[in-house]
Amino acid sequence: MKVMKKQISDNQAEELVSLLAEKGLTVFTAESCTGGLIAKKLTDVPGASRAVNGGIVSYTNEIKSGLLGVDPETISKHTAVSREVAGEMAECASEYGDIGVSVTGYAGGNPSSDPVGLVYIGVSFGGKTEVFRHDFSGTRAEIREKAADQAIRHVIDLII
Amino acid sequence: MKVMKKQISDNQAEELVSLLAEKGLTVFTAESCTGGLIAKKLTDVPGASRAVNGGIVSYTNEIKSGLLGVDPETISKHTAVSREVAGEMAECASEYGDIGVSVTGYAGGNPSSDPVGLVYIGVSFGGKTEVFRHDFSGTRAEIREKAADQAIRHVIDLII
Repeated sequence: MKVMKKQISDNQAEELVSLLAEKGLTVFTAESCTGGLIAKKLTDVPGASRAVNGGIVSYTNEIKSGLLGVDPETISKHTAVSREVAGEMAECASEYGDIGVSVTGYAGGNPSSDPVGLVYIGVSFGGKTEVFRHDFSGTRAEIREKAADQAIRHVIDLII
Repeated sequence: MKVMKKQISDNQAEELVSLLAEKGLTVFTAESCTGGLIAKKLTDVPGASRAVNGGIVSYTNEIKSGLLGVDPETISKHTAVSREVAGEMAECASEYGDIGVSVTGYAGGNPSSDPVGLVYIGVSFGGKTEVFRHDFSGTRAEIREKAADQAIRHVIDLII
C-alpha cells in the first residue's frame, strides 16, 4: 500500500514537469509548512530544470514579507495560515515563474492550539489566483506529504 | 543497511536543529542541485521553526542573481557550479539567517558532459565563508541525498 502511494506521488511530480515542459511553462514555489518538499519532489525529476525555476521556503513571517513580498498587514490581519496569505504567497511566487504555487498550514509538531492539518494551497497563473482549503489528517510527515502532493495536483489540474 | 543510513541522516537534521536552538542561531539555505532537500530535511524536525528561517531554491541563473543576489559576472566567469558561486550563494543566504548554507553541483539527469557528482557546499557565518568541494558517486537521487546530508554536517561541524 505504501509503495503504491509513493509511485503515484512520484508520477505526479513527473507528470507536472512533463506537462510544463510540453507547454513551455515554468513554476516557482512558495512554501511554508511543506518546507521545501514541493521543490524537492519536482527537482527529483531528471531534467526538471526545463520547467522549475526554483522556490522560496518562507518559514518565518519576516521571510514571507521581506523576501517573498507578502504584505505584512495581510499577515497581521489574517495570520500566516490564511486564505489571504496563501493567495499573496502564490502571487509573489508567480513573479519568478509562469505559475506560482504556495502552501501555508499547520503540519503539527509545535506546542500550540493551532488546528493541525489545516492547509491553504494557492495557485497563481496568468494574473488569476485560486486558493484551496484542505483539512488533512495524519502525522506531521503525512500532512506535509499530502499537502505537497495536493499542491502539485492543483497545478496539474490548472494546466492539463 | 539502508534503514541505518536513514536513521543517521534523520539524526543529523535533528542534531543541527537542536544545536541551533540551543545556541540561539538561525539558518537559511540556498540550494541549487539539492532543490529544497536540505530545507525539507531540516523542517522535517518538529519545532524547526525555532532555528530555520527558510531558504531559496535557485534552479536557474536568473533566480541565483535576481532573487538570491549572486553577481551575474561571477556566474558567467566561473559557471554556476563553482567554488566562487557557492561562496556567494552562502553569503547571500546569510543575509536571511545567522548561518547561510549553499549547494551547487551536478546531480546528473541532464544530457550534457557535466562532471556528475561534482558539488560545492558553502557555509557563511559571522562574516566568514568557507567552501568545500565534493565528488559524490551514485544515482541522481543518491548524489542529492549525500550533498544535502554533507551540507548539514558542515554546518554542525562549524558550530559544534
